[in-house]
Amino acid sequence: MRATVMYAARDVRIENVPDPRIEEPSDAIIRVVRASICGSDLWPYNDLPTSETGRPMGHEAVGVVEDVGAEVRDVKRGDLVVMPFAFSDGTCAFCHEGLHTACVHGGFFDGYGLSAAQAEAVRVPYADGTLYPVPGGEDDALLPSLLTLSDVMGTGHHAAVVAKVAPGHRVAVVGDGAVGLCGVIAAKRLGAEQIIIMGRHADRIALAREFGATDVVSERGQEAVERVKELTGDGVHSVLECVGTGDAMRTAVEIARPGGAVGRVGVPHYEAIPAAEPAFFGNITIGGGPAPARAYIGALLPDVLEGRIEPGRVFDRIVDLDEVPEGYRAMNEREALKVMVNPS
Amino acid sequence: MRATVMYAARDVRIENVPDPRIEEPSDAIIRVVRASICGSDLWPYNDLPTSETGRPMGHEAVGVVEDVGAEVRDVKRGDLVVMPFAFSDGTCAFCHEGLHTACVHGGFFDGYGLSAAQAEAVRVPYADGTLYPVPGGEDDALLPSLLTLSDVMGTGHHAAVVAKVAPGHRVAVVGDGAVGLCGVIAAKRLGAEQIIIMGRHADRIALAREFGATDVVSERGQEAVERVKELTGDGVHSVLECVGTGDAMRTAVEIARPGGAVGRVGVPHYEAIPAAEPAFFGNITIGGGPAPARAYIGALLPDVLEGRIEPGRVFDRIVDLDEVPEGYRAMNEREALKVMVNPS
Repeated sequence: MRATVMYAARDVRIENVPDPRIEEPSDAIIRVVRASICGSDLWPYNDLPTSETGRPMGHEAVGVVEDVGAEVRDVKRGDLVVMPFAFSDGTCAFCHEGLHTACVHGGFFDGYGLSAAQAEAVRVPYADGTLYPVPGGEDDALLPSLLTLSDVMGTGHHAAVVAKVAPGHRVAVVGDGAVGLCGVIAAKRLGAEQIIIMGRHADRIALAREFGATDVVSERGQEAVERVKELTGDGVHSVLECVGTGDAMRTAVEIARPGGAVGRVGVPHYEAIPAAEPAFFGNITIGGGPAPARAYIGALLPDVLEGRIEPGRVFDRIVDLDEVPEGYRAMNEREALKVMVNPS
Repeated sequence: MRATVMYAARDVRIENVPDPRIEEPSDAIIRVVRASICGSDLWPYNDLPTSETGRPMGHEAVGVVEDVGAEVRDVKRGDLVVMPFAFSDGTCAFCHEGLHTACVHGGFFDGYGLSAAQAEAVRVPYADGTLYPVPGGEDDALLPSLLTLSDVMGTGHHAAVVAKVAPGHRVAVVGDGAVGLCGVIAAKRLGAEQIIIMGRHADRIALAREFGATDVVSERGQEAVERVKELTGDGVHSVLECVGTGDAMRTAVEIARPGGAVGRVGVPHYEAIPAAEPAFFGNITIGGGPAPARAYIGALLPDVLEGRIEPGRVFDRIVDLDEVPEGYRAMNEREALKVMVNPS
């Protein structure tokens, strides 16, 4: 089959690789119907050391189950399924607690020697614990939104949950990337009264407003903090940190109201969390991490199926497999917000 | 009256100062029945820059109300009251939310130009919002435990609340000072199943065991982390960080179980919170700050009055006002765990 392999920063290739096959009795093989390029794929796109073997890429997918191992019970051949970016056994204490990204047998799809999702097919470990069957067919208009449940919408939702968004709350979303925009959807869905999007890309801001953002702050650093304070009085109850830089985290802490919470979902590119003192004296809570996307599908799916949320609108470009390298380039240069891959 | 004033590191004096008097109609004057020296008083004891005016010291007290301003309604002359370490108006949004240490008109007792608690009397702003009347008399055997509700027991409880201690949880308390020991009491009170005290002072560890600690870890750094993992498998659900150093915070994050929470109540002597990446990949929540001691008195008081908790046992020395400088020395050199002051 054909699959995406990255050999170095900026060196993304589409190659013929062996078809994935059932290796463990709990495995499934899915044929990828739609995959996508994640903001987190851009980190290796910019800094992956050169290697001979390459790294299979892609961890977001919707697919059709083609084969299942002998122990798979809940997932069946022909099912349309969402494949969350982390696999999980579905049976350990963490899975039962809804923290599938801490599953004792779990892991992430790319970088583990597994086949990955920007490909024609994927081997999925612990199929019953990982995959989530969804209604609809391969040509469904809802495919883009279903695809977001594999990562980006679950991640925006996680930020909102950790930031304790609740009805009537004032919320700020740091970052206007696809995760930030899904964070806006999540904040509105959870009843936020005021949603401030912090970013400076006109097209993304426009989409954020359609998703429910009520205010825009395009300043950065201390100016941004002052602007949020002007808009809110004493800051926001909830901050969704969707960038992952130290500067973004500092801003997130400084715009939080005393007693407020920051949900960080941007993979941290900082060694220590800044503003330890202001966070302390404001009794501000800082949480977050890799979203247990699998845990959230049950709650988010009805809203997708019934059209109450449309996170699939974050995709503004669709490519076939051959165009995946161009998709990386376009996302990296901010020409595209988020790229969907149709491998068929 | 006589009061404690600190003029420089190690320079603690007992002086005659003007009697406090009602300045605002919401004030009360309390005669101090018992005050105490706080672990946080040791920071200036070690690093206060020399000044001519000096800094009045003390923010923990139980007293009897001697006078009230014209607007004071709930607090009456002759009431025995707990004076929390922060004053608060009792009417703002933060007070209503139970975060009295973020009160928009509030502040801390010492360092604000107010009279302070290691003295014969104190002026208390916003008496109705600040003071908490309690039953009992000036010679009550419960006075030490009532006194802890002004700060140290409320602070240990805050760490436990922020760290989400719940029935059946595994808990670690970093630090065996008076706050840590009260953290042990709080963790047990909230139903923790395993309580690991991390410290190395034999007498304090012994008291921690009486308060409910089930395990002791006296190692530090990476060895401590490994020891906690041995005792717990995958770490603890809840960490009470009761020290305030960067090393203690790093340990706190590293011993937390995925999805766990750290409640930090040690005033941070670090600029950034270490271990940003492990905290992220473990979805560990970090919160805490100055405890809203006033908010917790209602919940903790019945347990004190009925003898179910005895936080007053953290006091192992009692001094009169003249002996306060010696009390500072003894606490600073770890000869005393916590010093109570009887100014009468």
